Parts: sequence; C-alpha cells; structure tokens
Amino acid sequence: MVNRQFVLAARPEGMIRETDFRMVESTVPPIREGEFLVRARYLSVDPYMRGRMSAARSYAPSVEIGQLMTGGGVAEVVESRNAKFRTGDIVNFQMGWQEYAISNGENVRKVDPSLAPISTAVGILGMPGLTAYYGVTEICAVQPGETFVISGAAGAVGSAAGQLASIRGAHVVGITGGPKKVDYIIRELGFHDAIDYKANSDISAALRETCPHRIDAYFDNVGGTTTDAVVAYLNLHARVGICGQISQANDSAPSLAPRMYRHLLVARARVQGFLVWDFTRTEEALVELAGWIASGDLKYHEDVIEGFENMPKALIGLFLGENIGKRVVRVA
Amino acid sequence: MVNRQFVLAARPEGMIRETDFRMVESTVPPIREGEFLVRARYLSVDPYMRGRMSAARSYAPSVEIGQLMTGGGVAEVVESRNAKFRTGDIVNFQMGWQEYAISNGENVRKVDPSLAPISTAVGILGMPGLTAYYGVTEICAVQPGETFVISGAAGAVGSAAGQLASIRGAHVVGITGGPKKVDYIIRELGFHDAIDYKANSDISAALRETCPHRIDAYFDNVGGTTTDAVVAYLNLHARVGICGQISQANDSAPSLAPRMYRHLLVARARVQGFLVWDFTRTEEALVELAGWIASGDLKYHEDVIEGFENMPKALIGLFLGENIGKRVVRVA
Repeated sequence: MVNRQFVLAARPEGMIRETDFRMVESTVPPIREGEFLVRARYLSVDPYMRGRMSAARSYAPSVEIGQLMTGGGVAEVVESRNAKFRTGDIVNFQMGWQEYAISNGENVRKVDPSLAPISTAVGILGMPGLTAYYGVTEICAVQPGETFVISGAAGAVGSAAGQLASIRGAHVVGITGGPKKVDYIIRELGFHDAIDYKANSDISAALRETCPHRIDAYFDNVGGTTTDAVVAYLNLHARVGICGQISQANDSAPSLAPRMYRHLLVARARVQGFLVWDFTRTEEALVELAGWIASGDLKYHEDVIEGFENMPKALIGLFLGENIGKRVVRVA
Repeated sequence: MVNRQFVLAARPEGMIRETDFRMVESTVPPIREGEFLVRARYLSVDPYMRGRMSAARSYAPSVEIGQLMTGGGVAEVVESRNAKFRTGDIVNFQMGWQEYAISNGENVRKVDPSLAPISTAVGILGMPGLTAYYGVTEICAVQPGETFVISGAAGAVGSAAGQLASIRGAHVVGITGGPKKVDYIIRELGFHDAIDYKANSDISAALRETCPHRIDAYFDNVGGTTTDAVVAYLNLHARVGICGQISQANDSAPSLAPRMYRHLLVARARVQGFLVWDFTRTEEALVELAGWIASGDLKYHEDVIEGFENMPKALIGLFLGENIGKRVVRVA
C-alpha cells in the first residue's frame, strides 16, 4: 500500500510557497502488536503550522527539513493489532500531512460519529473549538453585559469565540475582512456588530462607534494595527487573550508600533498569551460545545478543500484570508 | 496662621519644570466640629504625580490648573474637634502639597510611631512598600527558584520589590543606572545580580548573562528599551507586572518598539498593569512588611530633601534618577 506524505522542503521566507513542501511516496510498513493503521479522512490546516515551518523559537519544536509536516487529522482505523481500537473506528490525533499513519494509541482521541460530522473533530469539537472555549471562559473571562471584541472573527477560532461570548451575555463585535465575512458573522452567527478592516482605514474610530463603553475583553487572532487600536481603547480591568498573530506570521522581524504598556497601566489591564494545551477540562468543554451545537446556539461552517494534493494550497489560503470558518482538506 | 501650598501653574510639556508649579499663601481657616488640623512633617514625591499634572486619560483625575497639587503626606494633628484624632497624633493621607491641611478623618490612616520612623508611612510602610508587596505576591506571583527581574531597582518600589522576591526564594536581578546604585542593591540590599543600563548598551546580552534560565517574573517600573529586552526573553508562563513607565513619563507620545505579542504567545506569558488600590489586604501586608523590617530581611533607604519650598525640585529629580530609595521632603 502506497502512502503519500508532504515533507518540509524549505523554510519559508516571508509568505509560504507551494515549493516549501514536497510530496513523497513510500510503502506502508506492516503494523506490529499494539499498533493500528489509519487512513486519513480529513486533514486540518491551521495558522499555527506557519510557526512549525520556521526555525524561530516557538511553543513547539520546528519541523526539520525533509521531515513529515505536522498537523491534526480525522482518520479511520483500517487495520488493528490494538485491542482498544477496532477497524472502522474514527480517531483524531496529530497524524501529520499523510494519507496513512500507524499509531500505538498514545494521544489518540476516539471520535463519536453520532455527535456531529467527523470533520468537526479538528474544528468546532476539536482544537479550534476548545481554543475558543478556553479563551472566552478562562483567559478573557467574559461576563454578562461586557463588550467583547474578536479579531479574525470569521475564522475557525474567531467564529466560535464570538458566539461563546454572546452565549455568556456579552456585546460582541467581530473584526474581519470583506463584506462576505461581515455578512456571515452578523447574519449567520448573530454577532451584534462588525468592523470590516479592509473598508475601514481608521480602526480606532470604528471601535469608538461600535463599542461606546470601551472594550472589556479582546480575543486576538490577528495582531498588527488592529490590536494596537484595541489595546489603546481598553476598559478598566480589561482582559486580552493573545491566541494568534496571523497578520504578522509571514514577517521576518517584529514590526514596529507604539509601546502599549502605558495603556495597560492606565486600564490596569491584562494581556496573556495562551495555548489550548495549557488547559485540561477537555471532556467538560466538549460536552458543553456539543450541547450548544445541538441547541442551535453555536453554529459552525466548514470550508472543505478536496484532495490531499491540495494541502499546501489550502494552508497558504489561510494567510490570504480565503476561508470562512474552519478549513479542512478532505482526503479521497 | 499662614499656609503655604503648591498649585499647578502649567501642564508640563516633556520634562517637568519648576515653573509648572506656583507657591501660594493663604490663612488657615478655623476648623469645624468633626474636623482636625494637621501640620505636615513629611511630604511624598512619587513618579505617578507626573500623570496627575497631565490632561491625558489616566487612572485618576488630573489636577486642574490653579488647583492644589495632589500627594501623600505624614502629618501631626495640631488641633482637633474630632474625637478619634487627638493633638499629637501622627496621620497619613492624601493631604496635597501644603504645610497645613484640614480633614474630617475620611481616608486618614493613623501612624504608629513605635513601629518605625514616621516617614516610612509614605515609604516602605506606605504606598510604595504596598505596591512592591502586591506586585511581587499577587501580580508576579514569585515562586522559589524562579528568576525575578526588577527595573528601577534602586527606587522606593524597586528596592522593596527585589528584597521581597528574594525573601520568597527567587534569584533576583536588578536593573538600575550607575555604579552607586548597583553597589547599593547588591551590597546593601542583597540582590543576587545587577545590570547597569547606563554602562550596558546591550541589555539583551546582559540579561542572557545574569539570567541563564530566562525570566519568570518581571516587575517593571521603567518601560522603554529595558522592558522590550526583558519581554523578548521570558520563560514559559512568565508574569510581568507593569507598575510604572518612568522612562516614558515625559514623552508627549508613545515611542515605537517592535511589537511584543508574539513573545507573549510563544511564552504563554501574562502582562498586567496594576495599582496598589486594586488590592485590599493592607493591614495584613503592613504587618508582614514591619516584621521583615524588624528581622532585618527588608532594608530601606530614605532620600530626604529638606524644606517645603523644594517640593518641585524633589519631584523633578525622580525623573533624573537622582534618588536612592524613597524620596521624601521634610517640612520644617
């Protein structure tokens, strides 16, 4: 059986290019006692992968040149010598960018196909949904009546975070790019207001208009001038969660901006970087998320790209702002 | 009886000047039932006063032109029609820059002269000491074995904060300016190491040398390039407390620096602005501080300027880095 894999061919300089990846083929080896073989059904592309491609210090090791690209996937067990995993089981784990993978079951989560479409295991019921959940409940600690601002509002994490803040009773303002995404977060997801950063050259003015009582909590996926404007307009004891900085991801050096510490002092505000793996209430969080999906309070959209061979294109598109909701690649 | 007061004459542009203040004289009015009259013994000068002189938004209202300058003082009751305060009592409150003040007792704290010299009520056993206490215990949450860095290390807050972190078992590195201050924090206060920012053009290199295990907690009184270097060198789950930004205090607009959000994300670190009034365990904190003073674990130095008329000079000197320890003005 032939396995196709994407390995890292070159470290990107600036924007990722398709030539930074190389597809290789190999024969799947036989599985040993305790192992099982899975075939990918959906592979995830996420902004954090840009960091893994770089040699710069980050929260996880870099992928080395020639190594399999890292990433989460939803897969079906096709052969098993492990009593806990049976043929036909659907599983979720960091299987990498490949069609087949062998596992011993470590850090593998079983997916319940009766709960929601299995692709959600890398979306609203997976890492992005959990990131939104912990960011809103723990880091931003959103309270009823507060003003909550979210950047990257139409993305996988942002679209969930805005709805979760709304469920907690906040006034939710999403920042996103283009009328289609503005429409999506207001009409489909029920955000209270939106700022189209592509149509607004003055984000500060747009914030004053949409957030008359200033900003109590900010969930940042984007960084850059959007974040500068928000941090200059925080309320007393505001909380800022730094989840991603996608606008800065392809920069070779940190960009310059006015120092923001004085704003934090005046507002006695908190800025905190966080990662989903810092939190452990996963089972409880997934039950809550599934409940809100069932009740219709939490909607999600999947942006499905067809074909394993399109993994690099799918990832690059995230940084061009192509996706609405969670982008996944369906493996034929 | 003639009272001398300093009122705000002009809003400073850039560095404070003596002409931004004006001394006025008036007759002390008779006290009414429930009131008492105090005579200043020590008046405090603190970096936060620069903010009160400005019209810019801050955590407390600005002083208006022509209004009495705000500030804390230690005073003696010289006449009383309030049963709770007797002639000879020593009190501490925000009495402003004046020799005499009338109070009804609201927000007035009695000072116990047997505990320590009364001037400490605006120093180590007052706002600066409490700021250090809450910053180290609550905001930085310093743990044994961690690396703690403090800027403005020879100042009123910094010198206390470094020792408190040391009492909690941290490796303490102070950043300060000039050999005299370096000597003071190492030899007198027992800091483990020091960085002289005036002698080091490369603060990042100095941090790598003095903090081989990176930085777990940073207490910032200074801001600017020092803080930029520290934030780029944080450890996983580091805590940064923003207490002051004295290096930026006289700037008319925020200065530019590389954006630091990526560092917070990679380290999953927290940056928090804080103010002593956000915390309420005052009695408990003062008992602890007095205990460490008595045991010799917590040392303090007072930089006493003689004469009420020298209040403006005394304040300006803070921004020139003149003081070691807490600067107070002794009123004749």
